[in-house]
Amino acid sequence: MKTTLSQRTINRLTQYYTILREFSKKNIDNVTSAVISSMLEIDETQVRKDLKNINCKGKCKVGYDVKNLKNVIEDVLDYKVVKKAFVIGAGNLGTALSGYSKFCEFGLDIAALFDIDNDKIGKTVNNKKIYNLNKLKEIAKTQNINIAILTTPNKVAQEVCDYLVECGIKYIWNFAPTILNTPQNVKVWNENLIGSFIQFCAIYDIK
Amino acid sequence: MKTTLSQRTINRLTQYYTILREFSKKNIDNVTSAVISSMLEIDETQVRKDLKNINCKGKCKVGYDVKNLKNVIEDVLDYKVVKKAFVIGAGNLGTALSGYSKFCEFGLDIAALFDIDNDKIGKTVNNKKIYNLNKLKEIAKTQNINIAILTTPNKVAQEVCDYLVECGIKYIWNFAPTILNTPQNVKVWNENLIGSFIQFCAIYDIK
Repeated sequence: MKTTLSQRTINRLTQYYTILREFSKKNIDNVTSAVISSMLEIDETQVRKDLKNINCKGKCKVGYDVKNLKNVIEDVLDYKVVKKAFVIGAGNLGTALSGYSKFCEFGLDIAALFDIDNDKIGKTVNNKKIYNLNKLKEIAKTQNINIAILTTPNKVAQEVCDYLVECGIKYIWNFAPTILNTPQNVKVWNENLIGSFIQFCAIYDIK
Repeated sequence: MKTTLSQRTINRLTQYYTILREFSKKNIDNVTSAVISSMLEIDETQVRKDLKNINCKGKCKVGYDVKNLKNVIEDVLDYKVVKKAFVIGAGNLGTALSGYSKFCEFGLDIAALFDIDNDKIGKTVNNKKIYNLNKLKEIAKTQNINIAILTTPNKVAQEVCDYLVECGIKYIWNFAPTILNTPQNVKVWNENLIGSFIQFCAIYDIK
Protein backbone atom coordinates (compact mmCIF):
# COMPACT_ATOMS: atom_id res chain seq x y z
CA MET A 1 0.00 0.00 0.00
CA LYS A 2 1.27 3.43 -0.90
CA THR A 3 1.26 5.24 2.40
CA THR A 4 2.30 8.37 0.59
CA LEU A 5 -1.25 8.90 -0.65
CA SER A 6 -3.08 11.61 1.27
CA GLN A 7 -6.39 10.97 3.01
CA ARG A 8 -8.18 13.09 0.41
CA THR A 9 -6.60 11.10 -2.43
CA ILE A 10 -7.61 7.84 -0.74
CA ASN A 11 -11.14 9.18 -0.33
CA ARG A 12 -11.32 10.08 -4.02
CA LEU A 13 -9.91 6.70 -5.07
CA THR A 14 -12.58 4.89 -3.03
CA GLN A 15 -15.20 7.00 -4.78
CA TYR A 16 -13.77 6.22 -8.23
CA TYR A 17 -13.83 2.59 -7.15
CA THR A 18 -17.54 2.79 -6.29
CA ILE A 19 -18.23 4.02 -9.83
CA LEU A 20 -15.98 1.37 -11.39
CA ARG A 21 -17.71 -1.36 -9.43
CA GLU A 22 -21.13 -0.19 -10.64
CA PHE A 23 -19.93 0.14 -14.25
CA SER A 24 -18.30 -3.26 -14.07
CA LYS A 25 -21.60 -4.84 -12.91
CA LYS A 26 -23.33 -3.19 -15.90
CA ASN A 27 -20.62 -4.56 -18.24
CA ILE A 28 -19.47 -1.11 -19.26
CA ASP A 29 -15.91 -1.51 -20.56
CA ASN A 30 -14.55 2.04 -20.55
CA VAL A 31 -14.95 5.22 -18.55
CA THR A 32 -13.57 8.69 -19.25
CA SER A 33 -12.22 11.10 -16.67
CA ALA A 34 -14.97 13.48 -17.81
CA VAL A 35 -17.67 10.99 -16.76
CA ILE A 36 -16.03 10.35 -13.37
CA SER A 37 -15.53 14.09 -12.91
CA SER A 38 -19.17 14.87 -13.67
CA MET A 39 -20.57 12.07 -11.46
CA LEU A 40 -18.49 13.11 -8.46
CA GLU A 41 -18.28 16.84 -9.14
CA ILE A 42 -14.52 16.61 -8.89
CA ASP A 43 -12.36 18.64 -11.26
CA GLU A 44 -11.43 16.54 -14.29
CA THR A 45 -7.76 17.52 -14.02
CA GLN A 46 -7.77 16.18 -10.46
CA VAL A 47 -9.26 12.86 -11.59
CA ARG A 48 -6.60 12.48 -14.30
CA LYS A 49 -3.86 13.46 -11.85
CA ASP A 50 -5.04 10.91 -9.27
CA LEU A 51 -5.15 8.14 -11.87
CA LYS A 52 -1.79 9.10 -13.32
CA ASN A 53 -0.40 8.93 -9.76
CA ILE A 54 -1.36 5.27 -9.58
CA ASN A 55 0.10 4.70 -13.06
CA CYS A 56 -3.18 4.45 -14.96
CA LYS A 57 -3.34 6.08 -18.34
CA GLY A 58 -6.53 6.58 -20.31
CA LYS A 59 -6.80 6.35 -24.08
CA CYS A 60 -7.82 9.45 -25.99
CA LYS A 61 -11.63 9.55 -26.56
CA VAL A 62 -11.99 6.02 -25.12
CA GLY A 63 -10.99 6.62 -21.53
CA TYR A 64 -9.86 4.08 -18.96
CA ASP A 65 -10.43 0.34 -19.02
CA VAL A 66 -12.93 -0.21 -16.20
CA LYS A 67 -11.73 -3.67 -15.12
CA ASN A 68 -8.07 -2.71 -15.20
CA LEU A 69 -8.57 0.52 -13.29
CA LYS A 70 -10.69 -1.31 -10.70
CA ASN A 71 -7.91 -3.87 -10.22
CA VAL A 72 -5.22 -1.22 -9.89
CA ILE A 73 -7.18 0.64 -7.20
CA GLU A 74 -7.77 -2.65 -5.36
CA ASP A 75 -4.03 -3.26 -5.37
CA VAL A 76 -3.02 0.26 -4.43
CA LEU A 77 -5.47 0.45 -1.52
CA ASP A 78 -4.93 -3.13 -0.42
CA TYR A 79 -8.62 -4.10 -0.62
CA LYS A 80 -7.78 -7.69 -1.40
CA VAL A 81 -5.98 -8.20 1.90
CA VAL A 82 -8.95 -8.84 4.18
CA LYS A 83 -8.63 -7.30 7.63
CA LYS A 84 -10.74 -8.84 10.38
CA ALA A 85 -12.06 -6.68 13.19
CA PHE A 86 -14.44 -6.78 16.14
CA VAL A 87 -17.13 -4.21 16.81
CA ILE A 88 -17.27 -3.28 20.48
CA GLY A 89 -20.78 -2.18 21.45
CA ALA A 90 -23.85 -3.62 19.75
CA GLY A 91 -25.93 -0.43 19.95
CA ASN A 92 -27.23 1.46 16.94
CA LEU A 93 -23.81 2.56 15.68
CA GLY A 94 -22.16 -0.82 16.21
CA THR A 95 -25.05 -2.57 14.52
CA ALA A 96 -25.01 -0.11 11.61
CA LEU A 97 -21.26 -0.52 11.10
CA SER A 98 -21.50 -4.31 11.27
CA GLY A 99 -23.92 -4.22 8.35
CA TYR A 100 -22.19 -1.57 6.23
CA SER A 101 -21.83 -3.25 2.85
CA LYS A 102 -18.94 -1.08 1.74
CA PHE A 103 -16.68 -2.40 4.53
CA CYS A 104 -16.87 -5.92 3.20
CA GLU A 105 -16.26 -4.84 -0.40
CA PHE A 106 -13.19 -2.90 0.66
CA GLY A 107 -11.58 -5.68 2.66
CA LEU A 108 -12.82 -4.98 6.17
CA ASP A 109 -14.49 -8.05 7.65
CA ILE A 110 -16.43 -7.59 10.88
CA ALA A 111 -15.97 -10.96 12.60
CA ALA A 112 -18.27 -10.40 15.60
CA LEU A 113 -19.77 -7.86 17.97
CA PHE A 114 -19.31 -7.60 21.73
CA ASP A 115 -21.54 -6.08 24.38
CA ILE A 116 -22.29 -6.31 28.10
CA ASP A 117 -26.07 -6.20 27.72
CA ASN A 118 -27.57 -9.63 28.46
CA ASP A 119 -30.52 -8.86 26.17
CA LYS A 120 -28.12 -8.56 23.24
CA ILE A 121 -25.55 -11.25 24.04
CA GLY A 122 -26.11 -14.43 22.04
CA LYS A 123 -28.20 -12.71 19.38
CA THR A 124 -27.16 -12.22 15.77
CA VAL A 125 -27.17 -8.96 13.79
CA ASN A 126 -26.30 -8.75 10.10
CA ASN A 127 -25.31 -12.42 10.30
CA LYS A 128 -22.75 -11.64 12.99
CA LYS A 129 -22.91 -12.95 16.52
CA ILE A 130 -22.96 -10.72 19.59
CA TYR A 131 -20.70 -12.08 22.33
CA ASN A 132 -20.27 -11.17 25.98
CA LEU A 133 -17.43 -8.66 26.21
CA ASN A 134 -15.74 -10.90 28.77
CA LYS A 135 -15.16 -13.47 25.98
CA LEU A 136 -13.11 -11.04 23.90
CA LYS A 137 -9.64 -12.12 25.02
CA GLU A 138 -10.34 -15.75 24.22
CA ILE A 139 -12.03 -15.08 20.85
CA ALA A 140 -9.39 -12.54 19.79
CA LYS A 141 -6.70 -15.10 20.47
CA THR A 142 -8.49 -17.98 18.70
CA GLN A 143 -9.33 -15.87 15.65
CA ASN A 144 -6.05 -13.96 15.70
CA ILE A 145 -7.78 -10.57 15.54
CA ASN A 146 -6.15 -7.39 16.85
CA ILE A 147 -8.39 -4.65 15.41
CA ALA A 148 -11.38 -3.29 17.36
CA ILE A 149 -13.99 -0.74 16.34
CA LEU A 150 -15.08 1.05 19.49
CA THR A 151 -18.70 2.28 19.52
CA THR A 152 -19.49 2.33 23.24
CA PRO A 153 -20.96 5.34 25.04
CA ASN A 154 -18.41 8.02 25.86
CA LYS A 155 -18.49 7.50 29.62
CA VAL A 156 -17.26 3.89 29.45
CA ALA A 157 -14.96 4.31 26.43
CA GLN A 158 -11.69 4.57 28.39
CA GLU A 159 -12.55 1.65 30.66
CA VAL A 160 -13.44 -0.54 27.68
CA CYS A 161 -10.33 0.67 25.86
CA ASP A 162 -8.13 -0.45 28.80
CA TYR A 163 -9.80 -3.84 28.62
CA LEU A 164 -9.22 -4.07 24.85
CA VAL A 165 -5.53 -3.41 25.44
CA GLU A 166 -5.47 -6.14 28.09
CA CYS A 167 -7.05 -8.49 25.53
CA GLY A 168 -4.24 -7.92 23.07
CA ILE A 169 -6.01 -5.49 20.72
CA LYS A 170 -3.40 -3.39 18.91
CA TYR A 171 -5.50 -1.11 16.71
CA ILE A 172 -8.60 0.77 17.85
CA TRP A 173 -10.84 2.62 15.43
CA ASN A 174 -12.54 4.92 17.90
CA PHE A 175 -16.06 6.26 17.24
CA ALA A 176 -16.58 7.45 20.82
CA PRO A 177 -16.14 11.23 20.87
CA THR A 178 -13.38 11.23 23.45
CA ILE A 179 -9.60 11.00 23.52
CA LEU A 180 -8.40 7.57 24.59
CA ASN A 181 -5.28 6.94 26.60
CA THR A 182 -3.38 3.85 25.41
CA PRO A 183 0.14 2.41 25.70
CA GLN A 184 2.60 3.38 22.97
CA ASN A 185 2.22 0.07 21.13
CA VAL A 186 -1.58 0.36 20.76
CA LYS A 187 -2.69 2.69 18.00
CA VAL A 188 -5.93 4.66 18.08
CA TRP A 189 -7.63 6.18 15.05
CA ASN A 190 -10.24 8.74 16.06
CA GLU A 191 -13.14 8.79 13.65
CA ASN A 192 -14.17 12.31 13.09
CA LEU A 193 -17.61 12.56 11.52
CA ILE A 194 -18.14 16.10 12.69
CA GLY A 195 -14.82 17.12 11.09
CA SER A 196 -16.13 15.80 7.82
CA PHE A 197 -19.37 17.78 8.18
CA ILE A 198 -17.45 20.96 9.03
CA GLN A 199 -15.41 20.49 5.87
CA PHE A 200 -18.66 20.07 3.87
CA CYS A 201 -19.94 23.35 5.35
CA ALA A 202 -16.66 25.12 4.63
CA ILE A 203 -16.39 24.02 1.01
CA TYR A 204 -19.96 24.98 0.10
CA ASP A 205 -20.21 27.89 2.54
CA ILE A 206 -23.24 26.37 4.29
CA LYS A 207 -24.72 28.77 6.83
CA MET B 1 -14.85 30.03 8.36
CA LYS B 2 -11.41 29.62 6.89
CA THR B 3 -12.08 27.42 3.89
CA THR B 4 -8.35 27.31 3.30
CA LEU B 5 -7.90 24.82 6.14
CA SER B 6 -7.36 21.28 4.90
CA GLN B 7 -9.57 18.40 6.01
CA ARG B 8 -6.72 16.97 8.08
CA THR B 9 -6.18 20.31 9.81
CA ILE B 10 -9.90 20.56 10.55
CA ASN B 11 -9.82 17.02 11.93
CA ARG B 12 -6.91 17.87 14.20
CA LEU B 13 -8.57 21.09 15.37
CA THR B 14 -11.73 19.18 16.33
CA GLN B 15 -9.55 16.79 18.32
CA TYR B 16 -7.76 19.64 20.09
CA TYR B 17 -11.20 21.03 20.81
CA THR B 18 -12.31 17.77 22.44
CA ILE B 19 -9.34 18.00 24.81
CA LEU B 20 -9.96 21.68 25.52
CA ARG B 21 -13.60 21.01 26.32
CA GLU B 22 -12.64 18.28 28.80
CA PHE B 23 -9.92 20.45 30.39
CA SER B 24 -12.32 23.37 30.59
CA LYS B 25 -14.89 21.21 32.45
CA LYS B 26 -12.13 20.24 34.92
CA ASN B 27 -11.21 23.91 35.38
CA ILE B 28 -7.72 23.42 34.00
CA ASP B 29 -6.52 26.85 32.85
CA ASN B 30 -3.55 26.06 30.63
CA VAL B 31 -2.43 23.34 28.27
CA THR B 32 0.92 22.90 26.55
CA SER B 33 1.46 21.66 23.01
CA ALA B 34 3.43 18.78 24.57
CA VAL B 35 0.35 17.59 26.48
CA ILE B 36 -1.89 17.82 23.39
CA SER B 37 0.77 16.11 21.33
CA SER B 38 1.12 13.24 23.77
CA MET B 39 -2.64 12.73 24.21
CA LEU B 40 -3.28 12.60 20.48
CA GLU B 41 0.02 11.12 19.35
CA ILE B 42 0.44 14.00 16.95
CA ASP B 43 3.86 15.53 16.45
CA GLU B 44 4.30 18.53 18.76
CA THR B 45 5.61 20.71 15.95
CA GLN B 46 2.40 19.97 14.04
CA VAL B 47 0.27 21.02 17.02
CA ARG B 48 2.16 24.29 17.37
CA LYS B 49 1.95 24.91 13.63
CA ASP B 50 -1.82 24.32 13.60
CA LEU B 51 -2.37 26.68 16.52
CA LYS B 52 -0.07 29.32 15.06
CA ASN B 53 -2.11 29.06 11.84
CA ILE B 54 -5.21 30.15 13.75
CA ASN B 55 -3.23 32.92 15.45
CA CYS B 56 -2.90 31.31 18.86
CA LYS B 57 0.38 31.68 20.64
CA GLY B 58 1.34 29.77 23.78
CA LYS B 59 3.43 31.15 26.61
CA CYS B 60 6.77 29.56 27.34
CA LYS B 61 6.45 26.81 30.00
CA VAL B 62 2.79 27.77 30.64
CA GLY B 63 1.25 26.82 27.33
CA TYR B 64 -2.03 27.97 25.88
CA ASP B 65 -4.97 29.48 27.70
CA VAL B 66 -7.61 26.73 27.54
CA LYS B 67 -10.69 29.00 27.41
CA ASN B 68 -9.17 31.32 24.82
CA LEU B 69 -7.99 28.52 22.57
CA LYS B 70 -11.40 26.84 22.82
CA ASN B 71 -13.10 30.08 21.78
CA VAL B 72 -10.74 30.64 18.87
CA ILE B 73 -11.37 27.13 17.50
CA GLU B 74 -15.12 27.64 17.89
CA ASP B 75 -14.84 30.81 15.83
CA VAL B 76 -12.53 29.41 13.19
CA LEU B 77 -14.64 26.31 12.64
CA ASP B 78 -17.96 28.13 12.95
CA TYR B 79 -19.30 25.90 15.75
CA LYS B 80 -21.38 28.69 17.16
CA VAL B 81 -23.46 29.02 14.01
CA VAL B 82 -25.92 26.17 14.54
CA LYS B 83 -26.81 24.28 11.37
CA LYS B 84 -30.07 22.38 11.39
CA ALA B 85 -30.41 19.15 9.46
CA PHE B 86 -32.78 16.23 8.95
CA VAL B 87 -31.76 12.60 9.16
CA ILE B 88 -33.34 10.56 6.38
CA GLY B 89 -33.80 6.93 7.44
CA ALA B 90 -34.45 6.01 11.08
CA GLY B 91 -32.55 2.72 10.97
CA ASN B 92 -29.51 1.93 13.10
CA LEU B 93 -27.22 4.44 11.41
CA GLY B 94 -29.81 7.25 11.34
CA THR B 95 -30.68 6.62 14.98
CA ALA B 96 -26.99 6.53 15.97
CA LEU B 97 -26.25 9.80 14.15
CA SER B 98 -29.31 11.50 15.68
CA GLY B 99 -27.90 10.76 19.14
CA TYR B 100 -24.24 11.55 18.46
CA SER B 101 -23.37 14.02 21.22
CA LYS B 102 -20.46 15.53 19.34
CA PHE B 103 -22.74 16.84 16.56
CA CYS B 104 -24.65 19.02 18.95
CA GLU B 105 -21.50 20.37 20.60
CA PHE B 106 -20.07 21.28 17.23
CA GLY B 107 -23.11 23.16 15.97
CA LEU B 108 -24.97 20.45 14.06
CA ASP B 109 -28.54 20.19 15.28
CA ILE B 110 -30.56 17.20 14.09
CA ALA B 111 -34.08 18.61 13.95
CA ALA B 112 -35.96 15.38 13.10
CA LEU B 113 -35.78 12.00 11.41
CA PHE B 114 -37.81 10.73 8.47
CA ASP B 115 -38.72 7.22 7.45
CA ILE B 116 -41.35 5.31 5.48
CA ASP B 117 -41.78 2.51 8.04
CA ASN B 118 -45.14 2.84 9.81
CA ASP B 119 -43.72 1.10 12.88
CA LYS B 120 -41.20 3.92 13.28
CA ILE B 121 -43.25 6.97 12.20
CA GLY B 122 -44.57 8.96 15.16
CA LYS B 123 -42.01 7.53 17.57
CA THR B 124 -39.21 9.48 19.21
CA VAL B 125 -35.50 8.58 19.30
CA ASN B 126 -32.89 10.59 21.19
CA ASN B 127 -35.62 13.17 21.87
CA LYS B 128 -36.18 13.64 18.15
CA LYS B 129 -39.39 12.80 16.35
CA ILE B 130 -39.57 10.41 13.41
CA TYR B 131 -41.87 11.75 10.68
CA ASN B 132 -43.33 10.17 7.58
CA LEU B 133 -41.00 10.96 4.69
CA ASN B 134 -43.97 12.40 2.77
CA LYS B 135 -44.09 15.25 5.31
CA LEU B 136 -40.55 16.38 4.52
CA LYS B 137 -41.40 19.14 2.03
CA GLU B 138 -43.81 20.79 4.45
CA ILE B 139 -41.55 20.50 7.51
CA ALA B 140 -38.43 21.60 5.61
CA LYS B 141 -40.29 24.71 4.48
CA THR B 142 -41.74 25.53 7.92
CA GLN B 143 -38.40 25.00 9.70
CA ASN B 144 -36.34 26.49 6.88
CA ILE B 145 -33.99 23.49 6.74
CA ASN B 146 -32.06 22.58 3.60
CA ILE B 147 -29.52 20.03 4.89
CA ALA B 148 -30.27 16.28 4.87
CA ILE B 149 -28.20 13.38 6.18
CA LEU B 150 -28.99 10.38 4.00
CA THR B 151 -28.80 7.00 5.74
CA THR B 152 -31.22 4.90 3.66
CA PRO B 153 -30.30 1.53 2.17
CA ASN B 154 -28.27 1.77 -1.00
CA LYS B 155 -30.99 0.49 -3.32
CA VAL B 156 -33.41 3.35 -2.57
CA ALA B 157 -30.79 6.08 -2.08
CA GLN B 158 -31.15 7.66 -5.54
CA GLU B 159 -34.94 7.60 -5.42
CA VAL B 160 -34.96 9.23 -1.97
CA CYS B 161 -32.29 11.69 -3.13
CA ASP B 162 -34.53 12.78 -6.04
CA TYR B 163 -37.35 13.33 -3.56
CA LEU B 164 -35.07 15.38 -1.26
CA VAL B 165 -34.20 17.62 -4.21
CA GLU B 166 -37.91 18.02 -4.98
CA CYS B 167 -38.44 19.04 -1.32
CA GLY B 168 -35.92 21.87 -1.61
CA ILE B 169 -32.96 20.19 0.13
CA LYS B 170 -29.74 21.82 -1.07
CA TYR B 171 -27.04 19.91 0.84
CA ILE B 172 -26.92 16.13 1.23
CA TRP B 173 -24.45 14.40 3.55
CA ASN B 174 -24.56 10.96 2.01
CA PHE B 175 -23.84 7.85 4.09
CA ALA B 176 -25.24 5.44 1.50
CA PRO B 177 -22.28 3.83 -0.28
CA THR B 178 -23.36 4.91 -3.74
CA ILE B 179 -22.81 7.86 -6.03
CA LEU B 180 -25.88 10.12 -6.16
CA ASN B 181 -26.98 12.04 -9.21
CA THR B 182 -28.23 15.54 -8.35
CA PRO B 183 -28.81 18.86 -10.15
CA GLN B 184 -25.91 21.31 -10.20
CA ASN B 185 -27.36 23.44 -7.39
CA VAL B 186 -27.66 20.54 -4.93
CA LYS B 187 -24.40 19.58 -3.28
CA VAL B 188 -23.57 16.07 -2.10
CA TRP B 189 -20.87 15.18 0.43
CA ASN B 190 -20.08 11.49 0.34
CA GLU B 191 -19.13 10.20 3.75
CA ASN B 192 -16.30 7.82 3.40
CA LEU B 193 -15.83 5.67 6.49
CA ILE B 194 -13.95 3.01 4.61
CA GLY B 195 -11.53 5.63 3.25
CA SER B 196 -10.80 6.60 6.83
CA PHE B 197 -10.14 2.97 7.79
CA ILE B 198 -7.86 2.47 4.79
CA GLN B 199 -5.87 5.50 5.88
CA PHE B 200 -5.60 4.01 9.41
CA CYS B 201 -4.27 0.77 7.90
CA ALA B 202 -1.83 2.66 5.67
CA ILE B 203 -0.38 4.84 8.42
CA TYR B 204 0.22 1.98 10.84
CA ASP B 205 0.87 -0.66 8.20
CA ILE B 206 -1.96 -2.87 9.47
CA LYS B 207 -1.99 -6.22 7.70
